[in-house]
Amino acid sequence: MAKEITTRAADYSQWYLDVVAAADLAEHAAVKGCMVIKPTGYAIWEMIQGHLDKMFKATGHVNAYFPLFIPESFMKKEAEHVEGFAPECAVVTHGGGKKLDEPLVVRPTSETIIWSAYKNWIQSYRDLPILINQWANVVRWEMRTRLFLRTTEFLWQEGHTAHATAEEAEEETLKILDVYRRFAEEYMAAPVFYGVKTESQRFAGALRTYCIEAMMQDRKALQAGTSHNLGQNFARAFDVTFQNEQGKLELVYATSWGVSTRLIGALIMTHSDDKGLVLPPRLAPIKAVLVPIWKEDSEREMMLAKARALTSGWEESISFKIDDRDQYRPGYKFNEWEKKGVPLRIEMGPKDVEANQVVLVRRDTGEKIAVPQENLLARIEALLEEMQHNLFVRARAFRDANTFHVDRYAELAEQIEKPGGFFWVHWCGSPDCEARFQEEHKATIRLVPIDEEKEEGACIVCGGRSGQRVLVAKSY
Amino acid sequence: MAKEITTRAADYSQWYLDVVAAADLAEHAAVKGCMVIKPTGYAIWEMIQGHLDKMFKATGHVNAYFPLFIPESFMKKEAEHVEGFAPECAVVTHGGGKKLDEPLVVRPTSETIIWSAYKNWIQSYRDLPILINQWANVVRWEMRTRLFLRTTEFLWQEGHTAHATAEEAEEETLKILDVYRRFAEEYMAAPVFYGVKTESQRFAGALRTYCIEAMMQDRKALQAGTSHNLGQNFARAFDVTFQNEQGKLELVYATSWGVSTRLIGALIMTHSDDKGLVLPPRLAPIKAVLVPIWKEDSEREMMLAKARALTSGWEESISFKIDDRDQYRPGYKFNEWEKKGVPLRIEMGPKDVEANQVVLVRRDTGEKIAVPQENLLARIEALLEEMQHNLFVRARAFRDANTFHVDRYAELAEQIEKPGGFFWVHWCGSPDCEARFQEEHKATIRLVPIDEEKEEGACIVCGGRSGQRVLVAKSY
Repeated sequence: MAKEITTRAADYSQWYLDVVAAADLAEHAAVKGCMVIKPTGYAIWEMIQGHLDKMFKATGHVNAYFPLFIPESFMKKEAEHVEGFAPECAVVTHGGGKKLDEPLVVRPTSETIIWSAYKNWIQSYRDLPILINQWANVVRWEMRTRLFLRTTEFLWQEGHTAHATAEEAEEETLKILDVYRRFAEEYMAAPVFYGVKTESQRFAGALRTYCIEAMMQDRKALQAGTSHNLGQNFARAFDVTFQNEQGKLELVYATSWGVSTRLIGALIMTHSDDKGLVLPPRLAPIKAVLVPIWKEDSEREMMLAKARALTSGWEESISFKIDDRDQYRPGYKFNEWEKKGVPLRIEMGPKDVEANQVVLVRRDTGEKIAVPQENLLARIEALLEEMQHNLFVRARAFRDANTFHVDRYAELAEQIEKPGGFFWVHWCGSPDCEARFQEEHKATIRLVPIDEEKEEGACIVCGGRSGQRVLVAKSY
Repeated sequence: MAKEITTRAADYSQWYLDVVAAADLAEHAAVKGCMVIKPTGYAIWEMIQGHLDKMFKATGHVNAYFPLFIPESFMKKEAEHVEGFAPECAVVTHGGGKKLDEPLVVRPTSETIIWSAYKNWIQSYRDLPILINQWANVVRWEMRTRLFLRTTEFLWQEGHTAHATAEEAEEETLKILDVYRRFAEEYMAAPVFYGVKTESQRFAGALRTYCIEAMMQDRKALQAGTSHNLGQNFARAFDVTFQNEQGKLELVYATSWGVSTRLIGALIMTHSDDKGLVLPPRLAPIKAVLVPIWKEDSEREMMLAKARALTSGWEESISFKIDDRDQYRPGYKFNEWEKKGVPLRIEMGPKDVEANQVVLVRRDTGEKIAVPQENLLARIEALLEEMQHNLFVRARAFRDANTFHVDRYAELAEQIEKPGGFFWVHWCGSPDCEARFQEEHKATIRLVPIDEEKEEGACIVCGGRSGQRVLVAKSY
């Protein structure tokens, strides 16, 4: 814990790991590729879950739970799906001391096991739609792991819906994309671009994959959520039909969508600084810490009593802490809570008590503000909202300052390597032109916008005709 | 869904399965031994989680998340532990397309993986206590499964705490036992006996296992929660030491404790009847359903408008539903909500509107009560609390009527087979005498009381000296 945090300028990757360690969020487990999410990190996940779960329920979804294990044969029923996921699977071959007749895959995602169940749930259009979400762990074997961003096991939510028409499935896919966009912007204070993936970046088995993409402070993109229109692919693979209103048998339409503990990585890289974690107040498990200051041991009890009196009744409105530890000095405490990303520090020493004031210190700007003790809670709540807004505006300004429209490949080639950023470029739609970004710059088309005004142009690679610009960036 | 529910008298086991199906709580998955927890069942689990999580946090615990996979060698470090769990393990032998150097066990419980992490977290007494809980899925290979009661994969919470002294660990173990007891009685409306397990029934690796035991309607016992004092066994196995206040190195003391989706099975078998599920109001995801009644289609809109007006603003206080479906008749709806265990039905027809009243129908007693529409919400909330209390009192009366003090083995042998029940008997403490219950009656000592007054007596098996009575029953 005493270790200094590497600066972003010196080594961005090491900075990220240092912030995770300094804030005590997670660590590598004894099992290769897996992580332990420590209490401070898990509390952030609980905040994310709580808000997202409400948003899902407000849009008509319910939670359920499907098995961890998937018979290997199920994975093989959808050709693209198995091709995409087979290389990442963990496989159970023995159970209860015996070799299994059929190996079981530990779910990398649950389309196949869920559609094998939906087959029995759906007979008529009256059984539709099914709007189910599941909070679960999934496993995708990873060689190169990074805490929160890429681990063999991770936690996520996966929605799996079934619909009677293609239009309804598309509407659901876009509705969830909008939930993800709002969650990113309103809770994570992370501005995102949204759009549709190209064929090469699509979910294995999907008709169309929509996504939200956020910019990290190293100017790379991070895919923060995906919503897939699966068409009738999984219904076909699992033979799930329904009798429509006209009495005809038809294959069911599907969507699936998910966000994961990766969002914690996105949070860290969007807002944190060289002092440690910075959290948007709405996702901060502890919004404020009051650090009472005393010089003489004899003052301690008096100051703690003042601190308790000042915050009496607050617990009904906000989660806060009084740091009453006597083995650490105030400076140590300030530093610790800064590293841990608590949005607001409240300092109160004997002189503040005399002056009937406290000093508020904002984690986002470092600004110190002496304020009267009257109406303190209301002032703090307003300040937290202001900080939430400020973090969003700051992140958006950073993103916009690093997002460019470029039309010459040479210009793209230079800028994408340094300083990096998001690049709106014209693209003709050819996979060959798309492949060039990947091969020459390890960059990808992050998305094709769906709500932007169209603009004709010439493909930045081949000069061919392009109907609109697409977003190119290096990514996590 | 149209299938009749078998009566308890005709076939208790089939009744249980029929109630699960009629209430649409869960079903067997395509994977042997696993279940799909359907939305109605999962909503009950969410209620259980919500209340228990608050109780854990109120007693100082925080949540975290540890990996699903455990290296096989970790399982082997605690001799009793591996002996107990090895036969139930599911084993991953392949990952990412390759055979693994060391097989990974899918966690049947997480002591070993967690103590391998605690080793790095604990150096000094200042790092203690650690009070962590985890909500997770676990896997124990089962041959004979039963929805909720015994499945290969199940959901649970597992607490894992670390302490500086034996006394503190014992105190924690008993504190959680009390949380479980209060949860069972105050939320599940299930009276429980609590106490300590005999050596033969102890958790593999524990010093002492405490438990709560509830009586089901077939008079069998169901272990509803266990809290283990692990002593220094896991600290020894993983070499977890700390420097105590005197500067001496000492092994850390541990506890672990858990309840699972099995509680849903306990809920069903404690309260439900031949009409279907009965839920205690505090754990019912939907507390009340208003069924507006109309004869003519022309009345429908008017009745729905009245229903909405009547319940306007209720959503802030209770979760309820208006059954506005037009494809079903009221009788069908009544029946459906009864099967699903919604505590209170509110019937309102055109004549009720005229009389400015509604009819409340209690799920626990079937009683119909015409009440004025004025102050309806307050009346309903009071009635729900009354029902919660009534269910507890009824379950306790049933348990007490079927709990006996017996002193002659012949009497025990006859009664425990029919009609069954709980039996307080004297026992000398010998494993041989204990084994006789198991061999001759498939019954076990469920617990040795810890707070009862001692009473001298003669062992019901051998006549040897006994210092107190123990609880014997057949069990799930």
